[in-house]
Amino acid sequence: MVNADTLTTLLAADRARVDARLEALFVERTAPAPRLEAAMRHGVLVGGKRLRPLLVYAAGRALGADDATLDAPAMAIELIHAYSLVHDDLPAMDDDDLRRGQPTVHRAYDEATAILAGDALQSLAFEVVARARHPRLAAMIASLAEAAGRDGMVAGQALDLDAVGGHPDVNALATMHAHKTGALIRAAVRLGGLAAVAEEDARLAALDAYARAIGLAFQIHDDVLDVIGDTAILGKASGADAARDKPTYPTLLGLEGARSRAAGLVEEAVAALAPLGEAGLPLAALARYMIERDH
Amino acid sequence: MVNADTLTTLLAADRARVDARLEALFVERTAPAPRLEAAMRHGVLVGGKRLRPLLVYAAGRALGADDATLDAPAMAIELIHAYSLVHDDLPAMDDDDLRRGQPTVHRAYDEATAILAGDALQSLAFEVVARARHPRLAAMIASLAEAAGRDGMVAGQALDLDAVGGHPDVNALATMHAHKTGALIRAAVRLGGLAAVAEEDARLAALDAYARAIGLAFQIHDDVLDVIGDTAILGKASGADAARDKPTYPTLLGLEGARSRAAGLVEEAVAALAPLGEAGLPLAALARYMIERDH
Repeated sequence: MVNADTLTTLLAADRARVDARLEALFVERTAPAPRLEAAMRHGVLVGGKRLRPLLVYAAGRALGADDATLDAPAMAIELIHAYSLVHDDLPAMDDDDLRRGQPTVHRAYDEATAILAGDALQSLAFEVVARARHPRLAAMIASLAEAAGRDGMVAGQALDLDAVGGHPDVNALATMHAHKTGALIRAAVRLGGLAAVAEEDARLAALDAYARAIGLAFQIHDDVLDVIGDTAILGKASGADAARDKPTYPTLLGLEGARSRAAGLVEEAVAALAPLGEAGLPLAALARYMIERDH
Repeated sequence: MVNADTLTTLLAADRARVDARLEALFVERTAPAPRLEAAMRHGVLVGGKRLRPLLVYAAGRALGADDATLDAPAMAIELIHAYSLVHDDLPAMDDDDLRRGQPTVHRAYDEATAILAGDALQSLAFEVVARARHPRLAAMIASLAEAAGRDGMVAGQALDLDAVGGHPDVNALATMHAHKTGALIRAAVRLGGLAAVAEEDARLAALDAYARAIGLAFQIHDDVLDVIGDTAILGKASGADAARDKPTYPTLLGLEGARSRAAGLVEEAVAALAPLGEAGLPLAALARYMIERDH
């Protein structure tokens, strides 16, 4: 087992590591468009739990990667996530004023700048991976792009738009989330794994089974937090899903049903790690943490 | 010399080639989000001169690349260009209803779908290059991402937003365009070159000097067309720049001054091709074509 204190220390160290590297993307350079640059910084550097980078580091280490080879994929995954939040918050999308307790990018700047900042954060994600020149670069870029685009995250956002005010069943909801949040979580775990192994390896399949399960558990827990969470701790309004008539797991399964589904998925994720032996323990602890977090 | 008929035939063949390959990205697959997919198709497949892919093919061939290795970078450059147009047309940006004689994506679909379609077209560009697994992949992705993002195209769009209603001088206008349209044109030429050479090569520098000059010439000619062009041929309203109080080359240099600046740049571009010898002739013809086109 990895005890709670050890996990907390490890997570804090990895968060600090990726935050420092993300911050470094914005210093010692002459930005051609300073206001755009400031909006990008705002989008990626204001708060954030950095769960996806934590998964990159944990998955990579479980397969024996050096920390240094994990920085670029960790940053890239977070840059994609950050860009998606900037666009998701836009008036034409979720129209949110608050994110991580701060004004959203289009509120702090303006709508056009927020669109462009999101666009440039996406480009930067690919640039960061390309510049690291890892031997598995082609697989990393392909996995990241597929997870981010029309077969992954963006498809999920499109399905989510279609679903507002509709009445999807629990399978349709799972499909939407498998794209909207699941694909990038799987990519985080896969990129960590790719950084460690020179070619296809059965442990990548174990990692993927783990990632599929925690991706859904993560989303269910997000829905649960929207019901029971505290606006001050969440950094965004709780009850927002219900107010928007968004279909959620608690509305479909009940609050306890949703919690128990998430717990079952975490156990599934932990079981999938068996082929990794002791090396999988930090990933198991991270899976449990994902459904215990309060924001 | 490459005579006008030969050039026209060559350009038509390359356009047909890249169009077929772009079209193929949308067939024989199950799209998770069909409406998103349709909006992406609309963004990339409705019309388009395909000037950037033509530059990829011509630059790659000039350095000896096989056509087959040029398809992926040609598609990727056009996908980035197409995504930028989809976002540029949004109400928060240029608020255009018409593009290439058809409704813009947010008019044909809706604003949220247009934002997402642009986002997914950008991801697809990187995916297409990654899947081709070219030996120069790292340099290709880095060049493409840098040209597309905060140091290139997106920076130019941000500078353009800042400039509307302002009074930039001709240098500030050139800087804006060097980013907004120039960076992607340079990337088109560079990716073509990279597909041909195993390592750094003095001919890449010649290509880059060529690309810098035609990038600006192209933009000046676009400004000229906005003044003298025919709305029916342009596929968008002529006079749109003046109506928006956008600074342009004709307003700063006069119509004849702008034309003569563009012609001078094309001669500069042609001169830069000297190290390529006869292999550079199609690129020279393409440069002249860029300031003779009527749309």
